[in-house]
Amino acid sequence: MGYLESIASPRDLRELTPEQLAALASEIRDFLVRTCSRTGGHLGPNLGVVELTMAIHRVFDSPTDRVVFDTGHQAYVHKLLTGRMAGFEKLRQEGGVSGYPSQAESPHDVVENSHASTALSYADGLAKAYTVRGEGRHVVAVIGDGALTGGMAWEALNNIAIAKNSRLVIVVNDNGRSYTPTIGGLATALTSLRTSPRYEAVLELIKKRLNAVRGIGPATYDVLHAVKKGMKDAIAPQGLFEDLGLKYVGPVDGHDLAAMEQVLEKAKRFDGPVIVHALTRKGFGYDAAEQHEADQFHSPGPFDLETGEENPKGEIWTDVFADEMVRVGRRRKDVVAITAAMMHPVGLDRFEAHFPERTFDVGIAEQHAATSAAGLAMGGLHPVVAVYATFLNRAFDQVLMDCALHRCGVTFVLDRSGVTGDDGASHNGMWDMSVLQVVPGLRLAAPRDATRLRELLGEAVDVDDAPTVVRFPKGPPPEDLEAVDRVGGVDVLLRNGARDVLVVGVGSMAATAVDVGERLVAQGIGVTVVDPRWVKPVDPALVDLAGDHDLVVHLEDNGRVGGVGARLLQELNDAGVTTPFRLHGIPQEFLDHAKRAVILERIGLDAQSLARGIVEDVTALGEGAATVEVHRQP
Amino acid sequence: MGYLESIASPRDLRELTPEQLAALASEIRDFLVRTCSRTGGHLGPNLGVVELTMAIHRVFDSPTDRVVFDTGHQAYVHKLLTGRMAGFEKLRQEGGVSGYPSQAESPHDVVENSHASTALSYADGLAKAYTVRGEGRHVVAVIGDGALTGGMAWEALNNIAIAKNSRLVIVVNDNGRSYTPTIGGLATALTSLRTSPRYEAVLELIKKRLNAVRGIGPATYDVLHAVKKGMKDAIAPQGLFEDLGLKYVGPVDGHDLAAMEQVLEKAKRFDGPVIVHALTRKGFGYDAAEQHEADQFHSPGPFDLETGEENPKGEIWTDVFADEMVRVGRRRKDVVAITAAMMHPVGLDRFEAHFPERTFDVGIAEQHAATSAAGLAMGGLHPVVAVYATFLNRAFDQVLMDCALHRCGVTFVLDRSGVTGDDGASHNGMWDMSVLQVVPGLRLAAPRDATRLRELLGEAVDVDDAPTVVRFPKGPPPEDLEAVDRVGGVDVLLRNGARDVLVVGVGSMAATAVDVGERLVAQGIGVTVVDPRWVKPVDPALVDLAGDHDLVVHLEDNGRVGGVGARLLQELNDAGVTTPFRLHGIPQEFLDHAKRAVILERIGLDAQSLARGIVEDVTALGEGAATVEVHRQP
Repeated sequence: MGYLESIASPRDLRELTPEQLAALASEIRDFLVRTCSRTGGHLGPNLGVVELTMAIHRVFDSPTDRVVFDTGHQAYVHKLLTGRMAGFEKLRQEGGVSGYPSQAESPHDVVENSHASTALSYADGLAKAYTVRGEGRHVVAVIGDGALTGGMAWEALNNIAIAKNSRLVIVVNDNGRSYTPTIGGLATALTSLRTSPRYEAVLELIKKRLNAVRGIGPATYDVLHAVKKGMKDAIAPQGLFEDLGLKYVGPVDGHDLAAMEQVLEKAKRFDGPVIVHALTRKGFGYDAAEQHEADQFHSPGPFDLETGEENPKGEIWTDVFADEMVRVGRRRKDVVAITAAMMHPVGLDRFEAHFPERTFDVGIAEQHAATSAAGLAMGGLHPVVAVYATFLNRAFDQVLMDCALHRCGVTFVLDRSGVTGDDGASHNGMWDMSVLQVVPGLRLAAPRDATRLRELLGEAVDVDDAPTVVRFPKGPPPEDLEAVDRVGGVDVLLRNGARDVLVVGVGSMAATAVDVGERLVAQGIGVTVVDPRWVKPVDPALVDLAGDHDLVVHLEDNGRVGGVGARLLQELNDAGVTTPFRLHGIPQEFLDHAKRAVILERIGLDAQSLARGIVEDVTALGEGAATVEVHRQP
Repeated sequence: MGYLESIASPRDLRELTPEQLAALASEIRDFLVRTCSRTGGHLGPNLGVVELTMAIHRVFDSPTDRVVFDTGHQAYVHKLLTGRMAGFEKLRQEGGVSGYPSQAESPHDVVENSHASTALSYADGLAKAYTVRGEGRHVVAVIGDGALTGGMAWEALNNIAIAKNSRLVIVVNDNGRSYTPTIGGLATALTSLRTSPRYEAVLELIKKRLNAVRGIGPATYDVLHAVKKGMKDAIAPQGLFEDLGLKYVGPVDGHDLAAMEQVLEKAKRFDGPVIVHALTRKGFGYDAAEQHEADQFHSPGPFDLETGEENPKGEIWTDVFADEMVRVGRRRKDVVAITAAMMHPVGLDRFEAHFPERTFDVGIAEQHAATSAAGLAMGGLHPVVAVYATFLNRAFDQVLMDCALHRCGVTFVLDRSGVTGDDGASHNGMWDMSVLQVVPGLRLAAPRDATRLRELLGEAVDVDDAPTVVRFPKGPPPEDLEAVDRVGGVDVLLRNGARDVLVVGVGSMAATAVDVGERLVAQGIGVTVVDPRWVKPVDPALVDLAGDHDLVVHLEDNGRVGGVGARLLQELNDAGVTTPFRLHGIPQEFLDHAKRAVILERIGLDAQSLARGIVEDVTALGEGAATVEVHRQP
């Protein structure tokens, strides 16, 4: 270590000689690999943008000039260059730097949201604001070729093309990959460029030498530096951007710092918006990452530094879904699967292996995923669209107007629902059970364990005249929890006869509900613990059960506002059931990053806190029910 | 009339000679102009697609082949050719044909949703389904150049480009306009093509002869027919689509039936997806429409057949907003305005006239509208984004993650909120007050009259650290309703001392609430009628007021589920207020088209029905409160 520790702000980069910069790049790679091997993190994308980020910070003057990273997980290098090295000790953990830019961490950070394809829109707005205000600041947007498959990016490009006065530099970080190789017509066009003989010749050279070098170190940069000529102007500019009327520079080797700087200086001097097309390699400089076929170490958990092998982890919810989908696919020949550039992360790679012709990767394009699913359903198939819960918000209008309005049998599978933790505010899947409440006809299931996921997925896929949703959290499922009874469609998980408290546990909170129930039973309280399984529509049996108890306690791993509990309260009110109702969910605010369990405890969704509160309520209700009910209904 | 009445299905078109087809086209135009002059409707777009639609139905075999219209208001001709002439007597009214395709009306209709830029995604899904199922059916998608500015269309094109086996024909209906001229880089590219000398020569000829002819009649078609040569292959294919790897035919004169058929036949014989680029004129064949600069008669109300002048109508909510925005613009130099291709419909044309450099039309691109607004706010300005309420769903994720997460002062103005009626299920703005409930920090105002709209818009624009929303309905605002008192931020509109019933009227329902209140007072019931003005967050004063009454009746022009009333119920529950609560809103279902007043009465949101129900409740509560409260709480 040496140079990296001396960088307190981007201006410090300007003092360094080319040789020192090369050494710094090596240090950064080394640091990132070591850090991520310990904490996990978005290693691959960041190894790909080391020189690119250094060049931006040498040419532009952040924070006067603004640098916006699309899908901010590629901002680790930016964080290191803006004085946050120490925070990487606890990367994505409480007290450490977050995995995305954060305004609270640094004035150099602009955008905290991690959803893809937004940077060009922010940048367009920022650049226009500076134009209106007569400020001569530049805006630099860094966007991957994968994010360009998202419709928002197209909407933005269409607008930027006519924003003649905007001092806006768009750096397309073209590594040919989203998580996995980018798909679509655009990708094909870029690939044909990337595979032209002259480009290949240069890249081959890099590759050969790297293979000879092995490992990470200053040698890596030297190799790159040696081939810095040749890329610029080697290949004809890409037509797509120019058709839109956008100025275009490149392609340039994104690992050649000098060449990158040269091109960015040129772009900076343009009067209007300009595209800089940089060719990079995800995972560059770390053999294990570059050779990792699945996703080039997009976002590994902790791993072995030498072999690059991820530390073993047990079965997670995604695995259960992945296996069951293969069974569903065998049973129902009309079932097809859709992913939005997340084939591996959502587990559809197993379905694809069995049914390649029935599997569609649509790119980072949730809107198209939903509406093309409606089309597939209209055409007589049953699509299963698997996405992270937080990303379904991108397709809310399409779920409502395209799938539900037309009564299409489309099943949405929401992975990473509820509190996800590490990835911060924009990755928590805490919105779906609220916003989907408004969708007429839509049915929503929240399985409590692996067996229920298999069951409910099967039931969902068998609904062919309405959209269905199955949502489950990140991480491993709990032990299977067998029901002791079923009332209507509601599973009774625990019952000791007396009817003091009905505890409703939705999805992943069912296990917590049982834990709570057992604690209450131990205190001599009469408890019924249920899992509704299907949470939308509300099961009439659940309304009856609520009417039969003295207190209803509802637990869900979703925002408190307008979610399953709020809907149940509304249904109880409509039905004239006035049992005191206590609703526990995620507070309706953006949550800082931390481990899931830490957050759940912090927000009071752990069994101990819950049980304590309920005992107090029951005691108060017993002492003077009428008073409590009117003045302090739980 | 003659040929039109004989068309019961598209197959009947095949029996006609070229001369008869020409006569039919004229009849259709004449019929559309006469019908829309009486009922209002999307005249301009349909006059532009007469020959194009006829050609599609002669070349393809609907409903075996599927024809999907993007933004279905261009489907009137399609409806006439599929045996629905009689239904136009009551176009967009109860009992008549809807203004958009409708599966209930005809097996020839596929997509009912009227939101733009979806057709390519549906079509991609349908075509893939037919491929998977081994069916040789064709799918034809008709999409305007305006809808191509929407990101979904880009997502779809990117996928269609690699769907090699899809029998998918994309007809780009390029008239250079969305509602008003299409904006953006794509539009510029298309325009440069459209204005090439050879194309202009042909169009000039058409224009001259039409001016000579005047009015509508068989002559129009004859003129077109005379110039049918020359368009095809006259101009080089457009590069943008080919860059994506899509096959491309055209451009072709979309008003030349024979040429259109020829090109479609060619497209039909391709093995994979193909783009047919048709150049049309919105309002074609009706002088008044073609010469209407604002929007070429996009969707006029009833109008004078000879002069084309719309029947006079009074001031509507949009006018109030339009005028106030100019005042806001004068007061706050940092306020800028954004529209998504709806400058006139949302009333921002007046702001633009005063502040052109502070007004941005982003195309049919709500996502970009929201996120570029976040960027503008980060850059030190305060953007006002004006859209129809139903279209904000397109940008839900962007409002949440881009505006709210970053605490951006962006004001969203939602026109056409609540029940809109005529335009059917997908135009009703009945979702916004529910889905926006989940957005942390967002504040939402629902003005009850013109004065309150001016006030609340001003207050909203002055919030610079969170998104704000102001929503109002279609049509004219009611007479101003002055408050008799204010409690917290809540306006008291009526109060007679006794506290039997609290009636909460949100936005446009405040006038209804007062009407209801007066009816109750006349029956000797103690009433307080309030308008919360800001409905999110819930005003603590409103919670206190609810606790002080025997019954709360809540009225809102929004879906019942998860809306303002549901949120109030949740807040009351959290606060331990157990006053019986009756929630009246729009049933959570897709509503058929009809006049707004007709729908409101049908769903029980009229003063008479509401008052009747409340009197019954109050009587029951008086007779035996406890019983009612437990077993039939209102």
